[in-house]
Amino acid sequence: NSYFKIAVLPGDGIGPEVVSESIKVLDAVAEVFQCQFQYSYGLMGAEAIFKTGDPLPDETLKICKDSDAVLFGAIGDPVFDNNPEAKVRPEQGLLKLRKELGLYANIRPLKTYPSLIDKSPLKREIIEGTDIQIFRELVSGIYFGEKFTDPDGKYAYDVCKYSTEDIIPIAHMAFKEAEKRKKKLTLIDKANVLDTSRLWRKTCQKIATQYPDVQLEYIFVDNAAMQLVLNPKQFDVILTENMFGDIISDEASVIGGSIGLLPSASIGEENALFEPIHGSYPQAKGKGIANPVASILSTAMMLDYLELPEAADKLRRAVEHAIENRYVTVDLNTEQHYTTSEVGSFIADYI
Amino acid sequence: NSYFKIAVLPGDGIGPEVVSESIKVLDAVAEVFQCQFQYSYGLMGAEAIFKTGDPLPDETLKICKDSDAVLFGAIGDPVFDNNPEAKVRPEQGLLKLRKELGLYANIRPLKTYPSLIDKSPLKREIIEGTDIQIFRELVSGIYFGEKFTDPDGKYAYDVCKYSTEDIIPIAHMAFKEAEKRKKKLTLIDKANVLDTSRLWRKTCQKIATQYPDVQLEYIFVDNAAMQLVLNPKQFDVILTENMFGDIISDEASVIGGSIGLLPSASIGEENALFEPIHGSYPQAKGKGIANPVASILSTAMMLDYLELPEAADKLRRAVEHAIENRYVTVDLNTEQHYTTSEVGSFIADYI
Ligand SMILES: CC(C)[C@H](C(=O)O)[C@@H](O)C(=O)O
Ligand SMILES: CC(C)[C@H](C(=O)O)[C@@H](O)C(=O)O
Repeated sequence: NSYFKIAVLPGDGIGPEVVSESIKVLDAVAEVFQCQFQYSYGLMGAEAIFKTGDPLPDETLKICKDSDAVLFGAIGDPVFDNNPEAKVRPEQGLLKLRKELGLYANIRPLKTYPSLIDKSPLKREIIEGTDIQIFRELVSGIYFGEKFTDPDGKYAYDVCKYSTEDIIPIAHMAFKEAEKRKKKLTLIDKANVLDTSRLWRKTCQKIATQYPDVQLEYIFVDNAAMQLVLNPKQFDVILTENMFGDIISDEASVIGGSIGLLPSASIGEENALFEPIHGSYPQAKGKGIANPVASILSTAMMLDYLELPEAADKLRRAVEHAIENRYVTVDLNTEQHYTTSEVGSFIADYI
Repeated sequence: NSYFKIAVLPGDGIGPEVVSESIKVLDAVAEVFQCQFQYSYGLMGAEAIFKTGDPLPDETLKICKDSDAVLFGAIGDPVFDNNPEAKVRPEQGLLKLRKELGLYANIRPLKTYPSLIDKSPLKREIIEGTDIQIFRELVSGIYFGEKFTDPDGKYAYDVCKYSTEDIIPIAHMAFKEAEKRKKKLTLIDKANVLDTSRLWRKTCQKIATQYPDVQLEYIFVDNAAMQLVLNPKQFDVILTENMFGDIISDEASVIGGSIGLLPSASIGEENALFEPIHGSYPQAKGKGIANPVASILSTAMMLDYLELPEAADKLRRAVEHAIENRYVTVDLNTEQHYTTSEVGSFIADYI
């Protein structure tokens, strides 16, 4: 198969700028690897609210469902962040999209780049060689459980619910990845307090028997938050539930000093979405200073998913080439730097 | 008032060793400041399970309720940590104690010590001068909400519930502290997803009108987990709910490189409990190497609570004196070091 339908959701803030570099790079890939990408653009996030009143218009959802993969920029706008009372919010669009597409596994590879290691807030000896893959459950837990606020505003609740069916598919995915790597899987939970965490432990314990080579370890989430800073190298593949994954994966993303480079994939049975983890960064919007690398590396994850591993590898080499030659945006080099578009073109040309 | 009833719960692991240094120091305080401490000892944690089958025997609870303050060591034992199926667990004792004593506010001051800054995993310039006070709600939220696991083990849930009554007292406490400090209060929540977080925001917004000098800021918990590593100095007083507080305060505790020094207080309307944050550290048990400073500084917080501020200050100066003179345990100086008891005696003698 060499023809792919790509849904493109540029979203808010710097989303459109970085996504358009991904498209530039994909066009180069199409030429070299003789495949074809057909792009369908959709509105999403604050942008979509301003234009249609809906953070995820039906039209956009339809485009995504019909696609082989979704390329996503970022959502979020200060207009909403500063108004917690807003009834319609960009985040609702993203959560609905995850649920509707059944994107149950959010995957984040975290690596340190030798040439960028000194940009980290952590000491070189703590982080050098860190290489972690996080699997975060993305369509259940407290995000999607029943929510309630009593009309008088006296109390509220959120229910964190998990069934074994929510846990099994992502657990298998994480075990398989661990088999390919260092054969160690760490489940992060709070099993000393939560029933749902105990369900995660039991379910993973059972699945572990099918992966006799993989060592399954447990760590409480509070301790994990400490250990990620004290000694991130102790982790290889991490598996965790939705809310803990949100916190832990963001914490982990800053240890390498290169958040502008980190990609992510959200995978389901039938659909998949690829996005940089850096968010909409509204202050940088339209200035041509945004780093397109995270979006481009997300595109590499998409190429892997589409079973174009050679193209994905080529793309990753192109990015490494750009970084090694210091052909980078201002966040990585304040002295000599290039625009978003220049960096994208440099990477596309290399391909 | 110069007569105080102190409940002493040494607990597990290194708990007994560090608590006995606190007692040594309290005896010195009693002499110098002419007050009297009457100690009543209670069983708690794994120790209590082994001896009575109950992690919090009624007798212990009674001693605590009758006391002016509780000095607590630590709980936790590998026997239970490695067996998530254990029906009776040390943690249950601690959670029950918090609830029964109504200890709604867990307070953790985090400071960097100039002479220890290089022990941090973070770079000196990132952490130097960090001074944060965390207020974590301790008796509600998902810890104490309804829990359920269906008998077939197919699903489970945990309910995170908050009422305005749970939020108001600790919010006032945090606002008052902010007034005394830099007049900035940061609420950590996930108001873009959770109803309970929106209740926290609304409730704090209302209370803020009574503290016009204090600037109330909001940050999402995932972003907070990043910002604590990237730039901890941006925080002054932090307020948050129970589960987020568990994660965030443990993460924050490692940035200064001095977790063996950090105290905490858990305060209620009628009772209060003081404990080092380092936990039971079973590997070090009985070796005389545990750092007693966190327990001793928790004792200083207790003296403040008992309205003996001069004694509390003296105790803090004694600790600083010991650290400056490198009269410390092995965790702080591997070359020349002293035992738990030697450090305790040095501090007591200074008083
Ligand atoms: C925007 C928000 C709802 C979202 C989440 O909490 O999942 C974001 O933080 C993320 O991690 O993708
Ligand atoms: C032991 C455990 C139940 C406890 C908690 O989660 O509150 C501990 O981590 C703490 O922070 O005091």
